[in-house]
Amino acid sequence: MSSNQAKNPLFAVILAGGSGTRFWPLSRSQYPKQVLRLLGSDSMLQATIARLLPRIPLARLAVVTNASQEEVIRLELYQKGWEEIHLWLEPVGRNTAAAVGLAAVRLLAQEGDPVMAVFPADHYIRDLDRLLQALDIGAAWAEQGYLVTFGLLPSRPETGYGYIKAAEPLDSAGLAYKCAKFMEKPDLATAASFLAEGNYYWNSGIFMFRRDIILAALARHLPELSQGLKSLKPDYHPEALAEIYPGLPSISLDHGILERADNVVVVPVDMGWSDLGTWGAFLELFPPDESGNVVQGRILDRGSRDCLLYAQDRLVGTIGLNNLIVVDTPDATLICHREQVQEVKDLVAALDRQNCIEARQHATVQRPWGHYTVMDVGLGYKVKQIEVLPGKRLSLQMHRHRAEHWVVVQGEAQVTIGQEVRKVLANESVFVPPMTAHRLENQSAEPLRIIEVQTGPYVEEDDILRLADDFWRVSDKNK
Amino acid sequence: MSSNQAKNPLFAVILAGGSGTRFWPLSRSQYPKQVLRLLGSDSMLQATIARLLPRIPLARLAVVTNASQEEVIRLELYQKGWEEIHLWLEPVGRNTAAAVGLAAVRLLAQEGDPVMAVFPADHYIRDLDRLLQALDIGAAWAEQGYLVTFGLLPSRPETGYGYIKAAEPLDSAGLAYKCAKFMEKPDLATAASFLAEGNYYWNSGIFMFRRDIILAALARHLPELSQGLKSLKPDYHPEALAEIYPGLPSISLDHGILERADNVVVVPVDMGWSDLGTWGAFLELFPPDESGNVVQGRILDRGSRDCLLYAQDRLVGTIGLNNLIVVDTPDATLICHREQVQEVKDLVAALDRQNCIEARQHATVQRPWGHYTVMDVGLGYKVKQIEVLPGKRLSLQMHRHRAEHWVVVQGEAQVTIGQEVRKVLANESVFVPPMTAHRLENQSAEPLRIIEVQTGPYVEEDDILRLADDFWRVSDKNK
Repeated sequence: MSSNQAKNPLFAVILAGGSGTRFWPLSRSQYPKQVLRLLGSDSMLQATIARLLPRIPLARLAVVTNASQEEVIRLELYQKGWEEIHLWLEPVGRNTAAAVGLAAVRLLAQEGDPVMAVFPADHYIRDLDRLLQALDIGAAWAEQGYLVTFGLLPSRPETGYGYIKAAEPLDSAGLAYKCAKFMEKPDLATAASFLAEGNYYWNSGIFMFRRDIILAALARHLPELSQGLKSLKPDYHPEALAEIYPGLPSISLDHGILERADNVVVVPVDMGWSDLGTWGAFLELFPPDESGNVVQGRILDRGSRDCLLYAQDRLVGTIGLNNLIVVDTPDATLICHREQVQEVKDLVAALDRQNCIEARQHATVQRPWGHYTVMDVGLGYKVKQIEVLPGKRLSLQMHRHRAEHWVVVQGEAQVTIGQEVRKVLANESVFVPPMTAHRLENQSAEPLRIIEVQTGPYVEEDDILRLADDFWRVSDKNK
Repeated sequence: MSSNQAKNPLFAVILAGGSGTRFWPLSRSQYPKQVLRLLGSDSMLQATIARLLPRIPLARLAVVTNASQEEVIRLELYQKGWEEIHLWLEPVGRNTAAAVGLAAVRLLAQEGDPVMAVFPADHYIRDLDRLLQALDIGAAWAEQGYLVTFGLLPSRPETGYGYIKAAEPLDSAGLAYKCAKFMEKPDLATAASFLAEGNYYWNSGIFMFRRDIILAALARHLPELSQGLKSLKPDYHPEALAEIYPGLPSISLDHGILERADNVVVVPVDMGWSDLGTWGAFLELFPPDESGNVVQGRILDRGSRDCLLYAQDRLVGTIGLNNLIVVDTPDATLICHREQVQEVKDLVAALDRQNCIEARQHATVQRPWGHYTVMDVGLGYKVKQIEVLPGKRLSLQMHRHRAEHWVVVQGEAQVTIGQEVRKVLANESVFVPPMTAHRLENQSAEPLRIIEVQTGPYVEEDDILRLADDFWRVSDKNK
């Protein structure tokens, strides 16, 4: 049955709206888990998409995310040359049932009633072939009108996942089963009994169903949500969405639909999966050293055991630690007992309540043209180190309130200030007055690095008027 | 006997050559423990000196320190207006016997054979009156030819201190005793037996003796050291000292003299003393909160117990820690089990072997005119934030290899570049080419802050030629 493709081509929906507070301080609300490079050079989102490309072309992929994460998600697609992928924005997060419903509505703008495959943006899957094989099996059942889930063989009585209980097999090879019961996170005793019974699977969070089937299920089990979405045209204006979306019930697809529906199928799949739910997962995915530690970065340790010790540029000295998670970033450090990693999200919530910038963004901010790092902020000034990639340029922009002093320290800049365009070499500086159109460009083959000293009564990022941009950022900011 | 002053006035010698690696990352080899503000606005050294001023005038105080620490120690004296205090430099550290011997030799340049009082620069003493009273008692015995020590009533079987065993009292009031035995750090069983016996005291590291008496003791018990120092004239040239000093035996006064001499006296004193030997001492000196934690700085904690959690500007999130010492500074963090604080010095030794800058200096460097912080260093450039105190100016200087771009971000600068002198206001910038005499000055009543971008093939601190200086730094650097 593995060659049994669905009749009409798949459409994949990646749910990428998670805030990823569990990976603080590596993740921030404006730099969520799905864009972290936790396992290699691709972000979690990029790796999720790359896994699907053998089956699904870019134009039949959509990423659903929160409007506040638009720029960071676009950057992920841009870096890969994946601008063809649809980006559908939620004005606020309303959990997975609403996100899937929104995707189903937008799909009306596409042809027919394709099978939608829904994926979390931030899971790890080691065995690609097994995933693709399972998708082929699932697509066939989805085409026949089932809500298809994918079940992972549990290796421990995990209380952090939902479980799927399988009933009778749907085929002689045992590749798919009717779903007997669908349960969110159990307690430890219940999880242990599931493991003992044997016909329980972890819910992978991957689903497949026809567009018309999921819309019917929403109408039946979540009528309020369905009613709200029905008022939307497929080519709705963002303002129309912003009007109805915040009022939709916030419920997961699992709770809202799959626990209640009777046409659910589970396809078991063993594909080296991890949801990378907490820092603890690192200690399972990476091979520990002889002391049980996973160590990365500028760590100098004496005698610690069973710890995750992770640092970036700064130096961290550790002595005699046991079962701790240590994660160091330029502006914030986490030190957490391994058994309390679930509390990291509570810590971040507290930071957010206290309005700490460290809950929201990093000192270094990625941009499509390169990146910048805020090095110093004081009353009436801000200092940034800015790196522009070869061949890239920032938008043509101006600021109302601030002047900028630029000193080129590496490479060679092409600078536009007002009507003047000129080269500025390393060790040269220029001055950009307020209310003056300007642009910074790197036409060379080497990175360009400048030190920017902003001065003025107001030096926040939102004092920017983008007049022209190589990326997608003019209309969004200025309309 | 407490009013029994010595016949000739006291001379105090502060031993300030310690490297203070135990307080890393707050201390660095170029910013040792004695200059830390651990307990208030004065450094340990400043507090040590301030305690003596009721008895000893500035001109009869000398600080002995390592030549490599000259600038940082001078700055401590300068900040207090204590330029009158003698600063005697050791070319290399050779432990306390050599330092005291050197002081005794230098004292020949002073009048007579005064009683020398020797103090560690980095201890904490709560009860000033008790200290001064003990000094008065000790001075009288020192004047009579004894080597006077000061003994602290032990409160626990501490294995980190030396002990003094008292013999028969020397007066009816029990204010001083003959010393029966002098012992360096015992093991735990021995320390416990000392506590049980009752006539043992902790060695405070404070000593008093006549100059001629200690020179005689050195000649008898440490002839090699005595011989070496004898070749020095009291007004020796630094080069003469540099020739003999490294060859002197490196031994403590306790081991070298006091354990061997028979004319030792102990004056018991109960003065709220702590040697602040490790980070653990903080947990004893500061009142813990209801969870047993001592917390200072930007710490967000959930459920930690019995920890020292200390941060400066950065944010540290802690969850479920037990018995840990966490010390965060802008460029380095220490996380250490409370029972292993003794290993901090080993960690720093390892850092030093790896040539890590974090073992030697802070990101922010104190200067007599203010301070600077290195914010960014790259190939061919360095970025500093520089703050100049009101009324202060940097030296008139030039650099061979680097140019400097200055942007004033707060306050108002008086800038000299070559022959030109002019005001530079906030939001204005100037350029200082290489090989050009220049000076930065703050004539205003407000702090002056500038961002300095250095560019050139070599941007290290030692590319500086000081042509004129308000402080003490011209001759030292240029001879």
